Amino acid sequence: MTRKPVLALVGATGAVGTVMIDILNGRGEWPWGEVRLIASPRSAGKKIAVRGQEVTVRALAPEVFDGVDVAMFDVPDEVSATWAPIAAGRGAVAVDNSGAFRMDPDVPLVVPEVNTDQIAHRPRGIIANPNCTTLSMMAALGALHRELQLTELVVASYQAASGAGQPGVDRLHAELAAVGGKQVGERAGDVREALAAAGLRQDTSPFPAPLALNVVPWAGSLKEDGWASEELKVRNESRKILGIPDLKVSATCVRVPVVTTHSLAVHATFARPVSVARAREIFQAQRTVVLVDDPAAGQFPTPADVVGADPTYVGRIRQALDFPNTLDFFVCGDNLRKGAALNTYEIAEKLAGELAN
Amino acid sequence: MTRKPVLALVGATGAVGTVMIDILNGRGEWPWGEVRLIASPRSAGKKIAVRGQEVTVRALAPEVFDGVDVAMFDVPDEVSATWAPIAAGRGAVAVDNSGAFRMDPDVPLVVPEVNTDQIAHRPRGIIANPNCTTLSMMAALGALHRELQLTELVVASYQAASGAGQPGVDRLHAELAAVGGKQVGERAGDVREALAAAGLRQDTSPFPAPLALNVVPWAGSLKEDGWASEELKVRNESRKILGIPDLKVSATCVRVPVVTTHSLAVHATFARPVSVARAREIFQAQRTVVLVDDPAAGQFPTPADVVGADPTYVGRIRQALDFPNTLDFFVCGDNLRKGAALNTYEIAEKLAGELAN
Repeated sequence: MTRKPVLALVGATGAVGTVMIDILNGRGEWPWGEVRLIASPRSAGKKIAVRGQEVTVRALAPEVFDGVDVAMFDVPDEVSATWAPIAAGRGAVAVDNSGAFRMDPDVPLVVPEVNTDQIAHRPRGIIANPNCTTLSMMAALGALHRELQLTELVVASYQAASGAGQPGVDRLHAELAAVGGKQVGERAGDVREALAAAGLRQDTSPFPAPLALNVVPWAGSLKEDGWASEELKVRNESRKILGIPDLKVSATCVRVPVVTTHSLAVHATFARPVSVARAREIFQAQRTVVLVDDPAAGQFPTPADVVGADPTYVGRIRQALDFPNTLDFFVCGDNLRKGAALNTYEIAEKLAGELAN
Repeated sequence: MTRKPVLALVGATGAVGTVMIDILNGRGEWPWGEVRLIASPRSAGKKIAVRGQEVTVRALAPEVFDGVDVAMFDVPDEVSATWAPIAAGRGAVAVDNSGAFRMDPDVPLVVPEVNTDQIAHRPRGIIANPNCTTLSMMAALGALHRELQLTELVVASYQAASGAGQPGVDRLHAELAAVGGKQVGERAGDVREALAAAGLRQDTSPFPAPLALNVVPWAGSLKEDGWASEELKVRNESRKILGIPDLKVSATCVRVPVVTTHSLAVHATFARPVSVARAREIFQAQRTVVLVDDPAAGQFPTPADVVGADPTYVGRIRQALDFPNTLDFFVCGDNLRKGAALNTYEIAEKLAGELAN
């Protein structure tokens, strides 16, 4: 094409949308001729600076997609379910960060450094962005899988409050304000009492239990046989992204009092023999992975040090002592960046490259 | 014996010792004729009420063990290494909560509801109490193992600050006071900045990274091949307690900003077929386990609700979808009670029963 492509961002004023604007403002290469910001009618008219130019937010409507080449959706499932097909019907490729289309066999689920080739097959004109928990480990696992063939995965997550959006972040800050400086956490129920005393009702929290001074073994909604939706997403999305339909997966998802950046303890078994030395080489060769693994010097990834960063950080790499071909390691990934906005934008960027050819 | 046995508590003024005094004061049955409180010379002379009577703390010395039947040690490894054999040499049975003797083949490692029969074989006159992380899941795992034969264990921990003693608790409270009410945790390093601004130097922390608004994938000291000592303890102590020398274990130990109560995400594989229904029955039949598992009603164990309780709480029980004979579940146990003082006292109580017969 001779004209430069047009990019739209639906959900420009939400938690992930706000991070997306940061990414647009900070990106070096810029293939786009125009950026359209789209949100609910309530946010329409708002002005947001994108690369030095004020852009007026438009209300979501079919005609805003006319002339759009790539439309990124950072909105709830039900909004995407309705509007991504409308955008696609008007000629845009929809890149959707909701859960609405991820398991649709006619919608590729893409992590550019893992399965970028799948972008090409998009019969519905929609490409899905994975769940943030899955995404937080995918760059690292994908790199290992390419050489070693992943067969089994047991993961436990340490998920940040912002995985539940801005209400999750606000709640954690409010809870920390209520317990900070108080000697609580040593008696059953005293955290609940401190929150109640500060006027924080549990039934208005996005989390099913206090998050300050606590961990909450639950994320998402209840699915069959006691599984949380987030745990099944880790299983099903890992299988689809890595192209291993029979990958064995058990995940336990736990919310921790961290604002942003998901961490995972990963126990990964491969078809081929593994070594820590080779795993380090593989991670070092993967440009979107940063290796921080020198426990003798106190060096390992922690969410407080990784938040705001684009890459996935990996450390604590150990060869399992009792399980053949198995590595144990710890990963941290910013759930709003690589876990959401950044990966979506990287897919959009690939599409821009495709349009330019 | 006709006289009632004499109990000694070494380390009476420490973090675990203080919890032990609470346990002594609250226990229903009372087999002891006398309680001696022992600590470092610095704490000698202090008076502590035990079941309504003031007891003067004595300085640690060989002669304080004369006439003692059971001596509980809640002191650092090096103190136990020296003094438990001295107590045993003077005729006491030493019940040691340090790491000094746990893997000694002539010292039983005991969790009363799992392997109480091993108390009898104690050629050195010493019985060891397991590490708090291992202990936090042992009542639950032991009950399953008795019927189903455990073969493999993959665990990730969510460990409380008090696992690092009172300095750990004090540090977490100080860090929370420094970040509470501040909008930090959204930028790399801003938690470190907030702590530094509050005068909290990282190099004076018992933890190798900030714990407030963070998780720290490290507990203990560095052992071979990148393993943390705490992770190897989980492996080696689980094998010894359960009597499964070839049990396959991978553990990843992570510190979380919780004051007290360790949690673990457990992925356990058995020789025999498992079901969630049978696991619930097994847990319900184990008097030291409490089942809290109704996610539809928001019911699962969390450390803030379990702290201060004697039993191990279990929930989120799921049959692994892809691994045969495997259960995934989440456990919470107070690391200072069952994880330390309570289990030690339960061993002492068994010894009192043995002396009475």
